[in-house]
Amino acid sequence: MQRIVYVNGAWLTEEQARVSPFDRGYVFGDGAYEVTPVIDGRLVDADRMLARLDNSLARLGMEWPMSQEDFLAMHAEMIRRNRLREGIIYVQITRGVAERDFPFPATEVRPAIFAFPKAMDVVNTPRAEVGISVALVDELRWKWRDIKSIALLAQVLSRQQAVEKRAAEGWMVEDGLVTEGCSSSAFIVKDGVIITSPLELDGKPRILPGIRRAILLEIAEREGIEVELRPFSPQEAQAADEAFQSAATFGLLPVVEIGGQPVGDGKPGPISRRLRELFFARLQEEEA
Amino acid sequence: MQRIVYVNGAWLTEEQARVSPFDRGYVFGDGAYEVTPVIDGRLVDADRMLARLDNSLARLGMEWPMSQEDFLAMHAEMIRRNRLREGIIYVQITRGVAERDFPFPATEVRPAIFAFPKAMDVVNTPRAEVGISVALVDELRWKWRDIKSIALLAQVLSRQQAVEKRAAEGWMVEDGLVTEGCSSSAFIVKDGVIITSPLELDGKPRILPGIRRAILLEIAEREGIEVELRPFSPQEAQAADEAFQSAATFGLLPVVEIGGQPVGDGKPGPISRRLRELFFARLQEEEA
Repeated sequence: MQRIVYVNGAWLTEEQARVSPFDRGYVFGDGAYEVTPVIDGRLVDADRMLARLDNSLARLGMEWPMSQEDFLAMHAEMIRRNRLREGIIYVQITRGVAERDFPFPATEVRPAIFAFPKAMDVVNTPRAEVGISVALVDELRWKWRDIKSIALLAQVLSRQQAVEKRAAEGWMVEDGLVTEGCSSSAFIVKDGVIITSPLELDGKPRILPGIRRAILLEIAEREGIEVELRPFSPQEAQAADEAFQSAATFGLLPVVEIGGQPVGDGKPGPISRRLRELFFARLQEEEA
Repeated sequence: MQRIVYVNGAWLTEEQARVSPFDRGYVFGDGAYEVTPVIDGRLVDADRMLARLDNSLARLGMEWPMSQEDFLAMHAEMIRRNRLREGIIYVQITRGVAERDFPFPATEVRPAIFAFPKAMDVVNTPRAEVGISVALVDELRWKWRDIKSIALLAQVLSRQQAVEKRAAEGWMVEDGLVTEGCSSSAFIVKDGVIITSPLELDGKPRILPGIRRAILLEIAEREGIEVELRPFSPQEAQAADEAFQSAATFGLLPVVEIGGQPVGDGKPGPISRRLRELFFARLQEEEA
């Protein structure tokens, strides 16, 4: 079965889907996106997705192209039309179609929306059992990293560096310190303390405000696990007891190797495993 | 008359033109572009365009989607089909259509090409007579600024800052120094010496290798005008005798106001005017 995707109000097979090449998303990367997990046929943590997208749009000087209610209804319809049980829904909003010129269009332009589903194992991914290896790669990004923008070429190139080092993800390094993963938030654990980068450093956005990151930090707080929000170096990460990363597509994944060095005993650590359990248990509780 | 544009081998009206939203140009900004002037119905400095695009593609790990000869033939056909006498041709090459995933696609994917013409006064633009005002805006870009990539959101937002300051262009400022214009190269003149940023600083790409910038520096050398390749501050720019910027769409434009302050006597300076004359005279010589 071909997926059914959403393009500017129309439901189409992925083969049929078309947009204008004059869409500012295509010539400028001028737009924002979100990836939201679907578990048991239900959109997860949608309120946080709406809040983050609202911030991205505001930072880009863009309006919502529809009400947030209709935006959620579109997600629900996406799940229904694709009979999606588990996976993610990707959605991007771009500034729309206009004559190519750098400033925002002077006349009103209708933002463009593109969304598609992807079926995948979010909860029971085998990678969670064995853990993954991450490579240390270049941090190439721009300065406004709090915007979840589709101008992702830096992340594409950094992630490709990781692939070339045969790693499942890249942790980006800037001035001798890890910022985050190319498409995930990065954490280490030492002596029972979770360490992860703060969202800002010296008043500047340093990493993307990861939704799964925020939820995991809330769970850690509830569990009485200490958290230090500070940058860490690759060397500190390699000498940690545990490491893990978070993202919409897998919740949490234990990291067992960083830059070719095993972390701890090279197996998923107890805090990583526990947090992952609690992350998904939380959803069943909410449902009950 | 609607423009005829080029999309992946097809010649279409701009209204008909469509691409897949799964094109990595649309979801990642994963591609490179070029803008080439057309004067008297002839593509200008095409050899330099090919060389720069070749570098961008190499840096992105991409192959040319066609021979450089065919690429030039496509430009010539664009001029013919649109009866273009003066203006520019925009072209972008993206990595192509693939399931959305950050690393380069594992299987071979055909790069996508999109090109369109724009008729405009390049030589006799009235702005060259009166000069333009530029605003001082934030430098937000990523680190690999030598790649002319379509992931241009930083430039879009900086340029919008300039619009909101009622300026025709923004000169981007980083750590108290001007890098370049949002979509132009920036120059000042003091005591007969042209000052402009070097392409690299401390071994890192600092600005885009502007084709018009390179040509103007060659002309200056031939004319015996001294050039200093070093960063300059906004304050130094405001205290300069002259200022100007270069880009494909206008060759050279005198800058008469920077950050609300007049430059020199607030009129296009003699070196700016002379260089602009020589820039276009060069093309007539070549034709003769």
